[in-house]
Amino acid sequence: MIVQRQSVTFPSIELVSGETLSPVTVAYETYGELNQARSNAILIEHAFSGDAHAAGISDLDGKPGWWDNMIGPGKAFDTSRYFVVCSNVLGGCSGTTGPASIDPATGKPYGPRFPFVTVADMVKLQAMLMDHLGVEKLLSVAGGSMGGMQALQWAVSYPERCASVVPIASTHRHSAQQIAFNEVGRQAIVADPDFQGGNYYEGPGPARGLAVARMVGHITYMSDDSMREKFGRRRRLSETPSGESELFEVESYLRYRGGQFVSRFDANSYITITKAMDVFDLAGENGSLADALLRCKARFLALSFTSDWLYPSYQSEEIVRALRGRNCDVAYVELPSNYGHDAFLIEAGEQTDIVRGFLDATFRRL
Amino acid sequence: MIVQRQSVTFPSIELVSGETLSPVTVAYETYGELNQARSNAILIEHAFSGDAHAAGISDLDGKPGWWDNMIGPGKAFDTSRYFVVCSNVLGGCSGTTGPASIDPATGKPYGPRFPFVTVADMVKLQAMLMDHLGVEKLLSVAGGSMGGMQALQWAVSYPERCASVVPIASTHRHSAQQIAFNEVGRQAIVADPDFQGGNYYEGPGPARGLAVARMVGHITYMSDDSMREKFGRRRRLSETPSGESELFEVESYLRYRGGQFVSRFDANSYITITKAMDVFDLAGENGSLADALLRCKARFLALSFTSDWLYPSYQSEEIVRALRGRNCDVAYVELPSNYGHDAFLIEAGEQTDIVRGFLDATFRRL
Repeated sequence: MIVQRQSVTFPSIELVSGETLSPVTVAYETYGELNQARSNAILIEHAFSGDAHAAGISDLDGKPGWWDNMIGPGKAFDTSRYFVVCSNVLGGCSGTTGPASIDPATGKPYGPRFPFVTVADMVKLQAMLMDHLGVEKLLSVAGGSMGGMQALQWAVSYPERCASVVPIASTHRHSAQQIAFNEVGRQAIVADPDFQGGNYYEGPGPARGLAVARMVGHITYMSDDSMREKFGRRRRLSETPSGESELFEVESYLRYRGGQFVSRFDANSYITITKAMDVFDLAGENGSLADALLRCKARFLALSFTSDWLYPSYQSEEIVRALRGRNCDVAYVELPSNYGHDAFLIEAGEQTDIVRGFLDATFRRL
Repeated sequence: MIVQRQSVTFPSIELVSGETLSPVTVAYETYGELNQARSNAILIEHAFSGDAHAAGISDLDGKPGWWDNMIGPGKAFDTSRYFVVCSNVLGGCSGTTGPASIDPATGKPYGPRFPFVTVADMVKLQAMLMDHLGVEKLLSVAGGSMGGMQALQWAVSYPERCASVVPIASTHRHSAQQIAFNEVGRQAIVADPDFQGGNYYEGPGPARGLAVARMVGHITYMSDDSMREKFGRRRRLSETPSGESELFEVESYLRYRGGQFVSRFDANSYITITKAMDVFDLAGENGSLADALLRCKARFLALSFTSDWLYPSYQSEEIVRALRGRNCDVAYVELPSNYGHDAFLIEAGEQTDIVRGFLDATFRRL
């Protein structure tokens, strides 16, 4: 299944901050066909460093989508039955307007002048995309990690527009530890002299800082167990700046993944999006989560993974408790996995039956 | 109790690598008095970023030692009864020869030419210090984290010279995850252009990279719970490079601690010592831990803490199992604490009775 990235540009979007971004483009992909009743649309939300290419083979680079094991004919999100859409988030760097986009006021990239965006802003742009696609009501909004935050935000921002919500390995707000890991990544970027206060688009850019930020991320996405299984204490000869030397495999891996990330991700997007995640608080600063969910009408399926220490199960359970307190229709499954936070991307087998059954039941009840 | 740092310089030390470091100085402090029988000496081993100032008030800066809650008259390591010594490790930057020391061959700091040192080398220098102090046999060798690794190395390198060993929140070898966190710190330092390949002593030095490295460390020393209790999602106005702005308290804290660390720690020492920790493997690459402990004669007390996810209890339990397999005298306690890895520095109350009783029993049996 070869897929093409599409995009649509709107005149403007007003943000939670009160600022207006104008114009605003959103990049997206679609899989499957919208039915006549326009009742089979599912919105897939990507995680922090993801993009609109969730499934199929990209016509740009021949690479499979980041959730290709979950989206396709006969898969969990069955594209022979459903119309599946995935878009790059506002503030991102893969086709949607973000800090690297040209500011029409200056003719140069926004850089550090890109406005502060929230998860609610991301979701608002997605709602505009749904209008454009002729989808009034979504069968489901689903995603892992930051994707789950967006899905939860949909239930609160547009309670009439989603029949179901599937937050996976996610949270209704970041803990101090989650903020701390994001802050280390941001500081690694800001510490790089090539960051130039965010005005680096005519220079080399903060490649070293961004690579270090990504290395921290990768550790938090895996579990102690999965790192032991994948790397243990094995060593290998590796190319280093000072010639070949013997490194632990885990060191080589982190350096490789850090370097690889730099070629596909924008440092200002890194800062913009992690800030949106950290500030995200569905309940509001002094509010209760149950109150925030007061107007929710969607059915919920929450999933978490036993070895995920970055978004631990207790965070999913907090959401589930608040929903139960509101007498919402909510199912929760904690899946066994050794893969840590990455499990939501890897454990397709475990997730497929549960997601498929949940979507099927939701579709039948419409 | 005002304490003075002392030091002794030896003509040379031969390292595991085969290289010789000449001369070599070791900085140390002592608390209490060596008895006539020279049987009451305890060696305290510091953790990665620690130094010789374990107890009392330093005459240099008026600050208490890093384990002052555990060492002193009537405390766990009772200085009215025992003669307690703590020295800065080889490769360190607080008085003992390390990368920032002057290489007599060039008249300049060693920098990146400082030889590769191991935990066994650190312990060898401590044994030379014990000779200098007239201590043939130690009543105990004790320490947390990297201090515990050194204590274990004593039991293997000098089985006749220690009556007991107390490894706390420690391991006989780093996991892939522990190596990974250290590697991120090293890469943050190396990525700083002011690192200059380690030849930075005439320049500003990699202050930003070192601060980022320390920030990562601090997250791993705390637990999810203790960060929630200490910071939650509270915010505060903070001074930032771009003026005052509202940060999460955990962000301010990490920035502050990162910056503070730079003024007291040398980046080349950071790299040297974390490498020694990562390479440390008491069992040898393909050996069994039980075999490595074959000649051990010491009594052991191993402690771990429930919320310590950096040096989890299972690592202490691996050591305990191997010792039991050798029919060694070993006691193990997993202490309840929310403080994560920092618990060994904080939970004096929990540790005191156990350590005091263990030392007393060991002393009586001599």
